[in-house]
Amino acid sequence: MHPRELRSAADDIAFVLETLGVGEALTRLAPFHEFDTATLVQVVDEAARFSREVLAPLNAVGDREGCTWRDGAVSTPAGFADAYRRYRDAGWPSLPCDPSLGGQGLPLVAQIAVQELTAGANLAWTMYPGILHGAYECVHRFGSEALRDAWLAPLVSGEWLATMCLTEPGAGSDLGQIRTRAVWTDERQETVRVTGEKIFISGGEQDLTPNIVHLVLARTQDAPSGSAGLSLFLVPKILANGARNEVRCTGIEHKMGIRGSATCSMAFEGATGYLVGEVHRGLEAMFAMMNSARLHVGASAVGLAQGAYEMSARHAHERIQSRVPGADAGAPIAGHPAVWRLLEGQRVGVEGARLLLYRAALAIDEAHHAATQAMRADADALAALLTPIVKATATAQAFHGASDALQVFGGYGYVEETGISQFVRDARIPMIYEGTNEIQAIDLLMRKIVKDDGTILSRWLAWAQTQVRAASGLERLNGFDDALRDFDAWTGLMPSLIALARTTPRAALCVAGEVMQAVHGLSMAGLWAQASMAEATAGGTSEAKRRAARYWLKFELPQARRAVAIVASQIQDPETAE
Amino acid sequence: MHPRELRSAADDIAFVLETLGVGEALTRLAPFHEFDTATLVQVVDEAARFSREVLAPLNAVGDREGCTWRDGAVSTPAGFADAYRRYRDAGWPSLPCDPSLGGQGLPLVAQIAVQELTAGANLAWTMYPGILHGAYECVHRFGSEALRDAWLAPLVSGEWLATMCLTEPGAGSDLGQIRTRAVWTDERQETVRVTGEKIFISGGEQDLTPNIVHLVLARTQDAPSGSAGLSLFLVPKILANGARNEVRCTGIEHKMGIRGSATCSMAFEGATGYLVGEVHRGLEAMFAMMNSARLHVGASAVGLAQGAYEMSARHAHERIQSRVPGADAGAPIAGHPAVWRLLEGQRVGVEGARLLLYRAALAIDEAHHAATQAMRADADALAALLTPIVKATATAQAFHGASDALQVFGGYGYVEETGISQFVRDARIPMIYEGTNEIQAIDLLMRKIVKDDGTILSRWLAWAQTQVRAASGLERLNGFDDALRDFDAWTGLMPSLIALARTTPRAALCVAGEVMQAVHGLSMAGLWAQASMAEATAGGTSEAKRRAARYWLKFELPQARRAVAIVASQIQDPETAE
Repeated sequence: MHPRELRSAADDIAFVLETLGVGEALTRLAPFHEFDTATLVQVVDEAARFSREVLAPLNAVGDREGCTWRDGAVSTPAGFADAYRRYRDAGWPSLPCDPSLGGQGLPLVAQIAVQELTAGANLAWTMYPGILHGAYECVHRFGSEALRDAWLAPLVSGEWLATMCLTEPGAGSDLGQIRTRAVWTDERQETVRVTGEKIFISGGEQDLTPNIVHLVLARTQDAPSGSAGLSLFLVPKILANGARNEVRCTGIEHKMGIRGSATCSMAFEGATGYLVGEVHRGLEAMFAMMNSARLHVGASAVGLAQGAYEMSARHAHERIQSRVPGADAGAPIAGHPAVWRLLEGQRVGVEGARLLLYRAALAIDEAHHAATQAMRADADALAALLTPIVKATATAQAFHGASDALQVFGGYGYVEETGISQFVRDARIPMIYEGTNEIQAIDLLMRKIVKDDGTILSRWLAWAQTQVRAASGLERLNGFDDALRDFDAWTGLMPSLIALARTTPRAALCVAGEVMQAVHGLSMAGLWAQASMAEATAGGTSEAKRRAARYWLKFELPQARRAVAIVASQIQDPETAE
Repeated sequence: MHPRELRSAADDIAFVLETLGVGEALTRLAPFHEFDTATLVQVVDEAARFSREVLAPLNAVGDREGCTWRDGAVSTPAGFADAYRRYRDAGWPSLPCDPSLGGQGLPLVAQIAVQELTAGANLAWTMYPGILHGAYECVHRFGSEALRDAWLAPLVSGEWLATMCLTEPGAGSDLGQIRTRAVWTDERQETVRVTGEKIFISGGEQDLTPNIVHLVLARTQDAPSGSAGLSLFLVPKILANGARNEVRCTGIEHKMGIRGSATCSMAFEGATGYLVGEVHRGLEAMFAMMNSARLHVGASAVGLAQGAYEMSARHAHERIQSRVPGADAGAPIAGHPAVWRLLEGQRVGVEGARLLLYRAALAIDEAHHAATQAMRADADALAALLTPIVKATATAQAFHGASDALQVFGGYGYVEETGISQFVRDARIPMIYEGTNEIQAIDLLMRKIVKDDGTILSRWLAWAQTQVRAASGLERLNGFDDALRDFDAWTGLMPSLIALARTTPRAALCVAGEVMQAVHGLSMAGLWAQASMAEATAGGTSEAKRRAARYWLKFELPQARRAVAIVASQIQDPETAE
């Protein structure tokens, strides 16, 4: 028995870019013709180095120190501000931005890789620049020319950071309850005074940048009630004339994890704000940002899962205990079947999540840049389908994977100094923020499957099934043929599921989580088949993907089968809350 | 839609005692003839009141303050020592002890209920008296007369507390690596000087009691290597002559949870110790304590799961958000299908775990007190079978249930002041201590199933199947008939599983976790059938158990089916670490 070689995140992203062909697909898109895959891999390696050398050493420090609030000001943990200066000076914020605005014009795939790597090293720190790209996209796409001229450049350069101000004490998942008011101060309805309280604002105040651009959902005086009456406003901490705006941080939360990230309560007291997009269509602009945020959350989760996996794998190869069946006394615990399951389950989980994450990121790049309108629309629909799946399943994988990693450490894992419990605590929040995983499941079922009669999903699963069929015909890729039956089972079920969701939405919503697991399972079958074939085609000595696929088919696919069975039973005999 | 009535732990334990017949089964045992079920229910209610009024208010305090160590002394959080005095004065420590020693002679079932209730209110505090009963049993059963005369009474009264000193830096799951040495100081080989370091000792030092009785695994100078060479010694903090023994607390751990519990590193430096049981047979004596400890861990886990469930159910009925399908604006989130699943999943999980826990506790009482030797042996075998299942599955339920409870709170759940994240952090350790859940699964497979050719398991599952068959014949208990097929599937599998475990243990051990889930699922099918029938027979308006059983059959049993499928596939085509 030999310790299984540990593949780093950067190496595995390189596999996705090179062997799986994501890099080539990107360079076929017009704006990326000049990049080759090697350049992208180089960017990834640089980000990995920065994360390892600058951010990882601050991870435990940030957890221990946390942030402090005094008189409206927030101090981040020692080293955070300096690390941000280095991140900004290296040009990371501008990576995926428009070259005409000073950006580097790289694909979103590259940006997602940076997010994965930085979050895996230090999620709390990554929260600060984490929303920057979404804010840039939102202002870039929806802002007036004047607004873009005034506020975009410092967001591209990372001179300033941004926040997304949605949640209020009475308005969490239900944004229609938002009460923050906006009163017009000009006749052209471009400028407002914003008054209200927002909570859970990541980076609402910090000592990393001299200015902070808040994107705030609020209700104008003439607005209808509910979410249709919300508009989006850009509210800077410091106004263009250098004056302090009427927005203050009134406190920060004491949290289970990501303690180095300042989670702020914000008071807007007649703060000057500028309309972004159209009046009453704030949700549309906000969701452009939110969808980007959801994919970034998925990327963070993959990073966390990888970080926890690496830590536990290293420990399992170092910790000596005997009683490993078939081994001499004094073998590393990694050789124990139970530990092997904990490690392989993590590895397969994180590598699988990565396959899905970069497929979704590629779809977004294609949605922006594919050659024809029809191709862009298809890619956009696929991205919309995959985004909630990535967000929900990668974050679940991160939390449960980190918990498995802790288990590998035994009692040592429960001691804070070991460092693995921070992964578990940090990984608990991505299942909640940017829309809880339950909301992702509802989004998938109702808006991504039912709304278009399952068209996009069927198209995606047809691709996945093609991969599985091709793989099942190949020698040494056994196990995939079984998965073909799962596609048939799902296909047979989908019309009745859609019918149930239309006639008795409550009954269908009770199994939205299982629908998510089922669709995720079938998607992964396709992606593992693709990865296995790509590895086989590439030649080389590594069989890592084929081993992982075999593990996945045997130990993980049955979870999706269970979900399909529950969905079927719910269709046949619905059970709901009375 | 009306908020589902919240059943308290005490009410649900009363269901187990009264309606399910555990109380009656106990009073059939000779020592408990004088108790009636009403008395037991009264004890439970008293323990619930004490837990609610005295312990629960100290739970968050203990988490916030933690313990402090200075110069070998440990201060527990404010209020902990006073609460312990009240616990001791009320006579709780003596509950299940021998009346001839000053105990109250109540069944272990009662003791387990007290453990469940106190742990549900405050696990960190419960850690201090948590090992007391195991220590009492160990000394009572294995100690010499002199040892018992000298040390038992203050353990019965709770005047002193006890610890279990196993783990060392190089010896965790593998006790054979223990290096602590014991050198005889008398010719009769009764007294030793113990030298070595122990870690992760709960309550190794504290300010609750003037003396602490350590039960220490160590190796005598003549001992063979491995676990066969270990002996057990009683090492008091204060010797009978009032002198301080040579044992010191060298530090405490900074942990993810149960922060009010002092997890100590202990240095024994020629400390005086007394042999418990026979030389080189320390593991046997220790395991008497360990098995008690495992059931107590299961009880604690049920308490935690209940506490988290109650907190989240209360929040879900108070938190108003609209967008609940089919409800008017402003409905509690409990009415949302996704929240319903999070709540019902917890309720069914905790009530199911309770059914199994008290079945195991009853088996231990029967093992001690049943009328014939054959009956006692049968009950003992059943207790041995069920103990690892209780330990592993109840603790997994507690952690995942607490995480689901946190999810119900959304962002608020991640804020420490809400209190639910403490449940998640506290609930992470029971999956590790007293033998990790992986070790429980190995114990179940190799020592409880394979070793006796599946005899005890088959007998237990025959009982469960009888319950399921009876329930499947009754109207309004639909869904149980499906479960009958699961028993057949398992029965068909078991001989090949046992054969695989004998020929290729590594392959079988790779699915030990799934064997645990499968056996647990079938056990629960029987217990839910029994509970449903008992509720129906009892009459009354409540249909809580039948509703819970229906939920379990639909949403949880498929998890056991998945496990059976994986075991089957492993038998057919074994996959192991290379």
